Amino acid sequence: MSAGSLAIVGLGPGPHELMTFEADAAIRSASDLVGYGPYLDRLPALPEQKRHASDNRVEIDRARQALDLALGGARVAVVSGGDPGVFAMAAAVFEAVERGDPRWRDLDIEIHPGVSAMLAVAARLGAPLGHDFAVISLSDNLKPWDAIARRLTAAAQADFVMALYNPASKARPHLIHDVFKLLRGLKAPETIVAFARAVNRPDERIELTTLGAADPSVADMSTLVLIGSSATRRVTRGNGGFWVYSPRSYGDMR
Amino acid sequence: MSAGSLAIVGLGPGPHELMTFEADAAIRSASDLVGYGPYLDRLPALPEQKRHASDNRVEIDRARQALDLALGGARVAVVSGGDPGVFAMAAAVFEAVERGDPRWRDLDIEIHPGVSAMLAVAARLGAPLGHDFAVISLSDNLKPWDAIARRLTAAAQADFVMALYNPASKARPHLIHDVFKLLRGLKAPETIVAFARAVNRPDERIELTTLGAADPSVADMSTLVLIGSSATRRVTRGNGGFWVYSPRSYGDMR
Repeated sequence: MSAGSLAIVGLGPGPHELMTFEADAAIRSASDLVGYGPYLDRLPALPEQKRHASDNRVEIDRARQALDLALGGARVAVVSGGDPGVFAMAAAVFEAVERGDPRWRDLDIEIHPGVSAMLAVAARLGAPLGHDFAVISLSDNLKPWDAIARRLTAAAQADFVMALYNPASKARPHLIHDVFKLLRGLKAPETIVAFARAVNRPDERIELTTLGAADPSVADMSTLVLIGSSATRRVTRGNGGFWVYSPRSYGDMR
Repeated sequence: MSAGSLAIVGLGPGPHELMTFEADAAIRSASDLVGYGPYLDRLPALPEQKRHASDNRVEIDRARQALDLALGGARVAVVSGGDPGVFAMAAAVFEAVERGDPRWRDLDIEIHPGVSAMLAVAARLGAPLGHDFAVISLSDNLKPWDAIARRLTAAAQADFVMALYNPASKARPHLIHDVFKLLRGLKAPETIVAFARAVNRPDERIELTTLGAADPSVADMSTLVLIGSSATRRVTRGNGGFWVYSPRSYGDMR
């Protein structure tokens, strides 16, 4: 049997138009698609293409399944929403490779990047990531609070804009409240905060607020939370709405 | 004259295949393209489409030009390499809007995100951004060293992976050396470092090394520098090469 291949593909934030041409081609040329069910459901059904849908909580098992299919000769595409390299399938695949079947190391593995959620959210708001920023995932049940708090504190003290992925967890419903409590002790109440849910999808909802006024309980599993730096600011639009941006210069840095 | 519009468009890292369908459509439907000359040169010439090429060092002037063209009724696309929201044209446009002609606030401004350089570099290497990371630009001549050092120190002490944009500056040739000197005092010599130049372009060159062994002078204006966390690791490929990834869990965090 000829050697298979594994493509790790970023679908972007949702609609097909925000996928790259390369990602689209990688998916079309695959014999087997592996991924979380709702991501596979975004893709058009192609004849003779097999689908292997799985639950979102078993990334490492999904990675192993994809690697085994490729080893068996399949042209496999494993898909992620957003970019596969940011808190997504690419790291899971390499964790599996490092610990698993030595033959997986011989496979042809390619990664096709995508527009990550933070970039899609930033594009909706204006340019909040126009200056230095830190990207932190709150999702993993294995993460000790001390480690999360240490990174949030460092990011706040050095005045980074922050993009917080996966802010809600069924296992830890109080986590996002603890995060806001910590940040309120470190940053000014007028700091700009945005809760951006399902950006670019039909159920998109963006709430622009401040650190002092924010209600963290609006953050669910589909929400990305943006926390401004001291320089992040709003510009009033002619229609009464706002753009949010972070100036490119350090001049305004606290 | 009918109202014009302004699209701020991310071209991705280089080849057309890494652009999104939406970005491609926004460029094709524009009457006027504004951007740094080499970015405009990547795009196919369309009849009746005007091009306004400019020098890279005048982003704010380019933003004002694009806004004025839109105010005059043009369908303007201003282009950035990578994603326009990450150290690029989107922030320049909103800086111009905030300080400029009040009528600019009434314009229809849309941002079309793209695959940023850090995501393209990560896809080439494996999954180095698979865990929390900080994104820092070293380019701006206005940046005081103290501010840069403060952010690098915070990112190192909280063990973020780091993506450093614009590491080389003609005005400050010693900056990248100062950055490495600082990081060597804060992080282990075996920390993984990658210099990724012109990724996805014909002159791509990636050097994978360690903090202790790195020669920072290889970084030029087209290079993105990745600095691993303490958990970032290499996996040997069957062909003798390496993948680089950062595990998803905090388990290995220092």
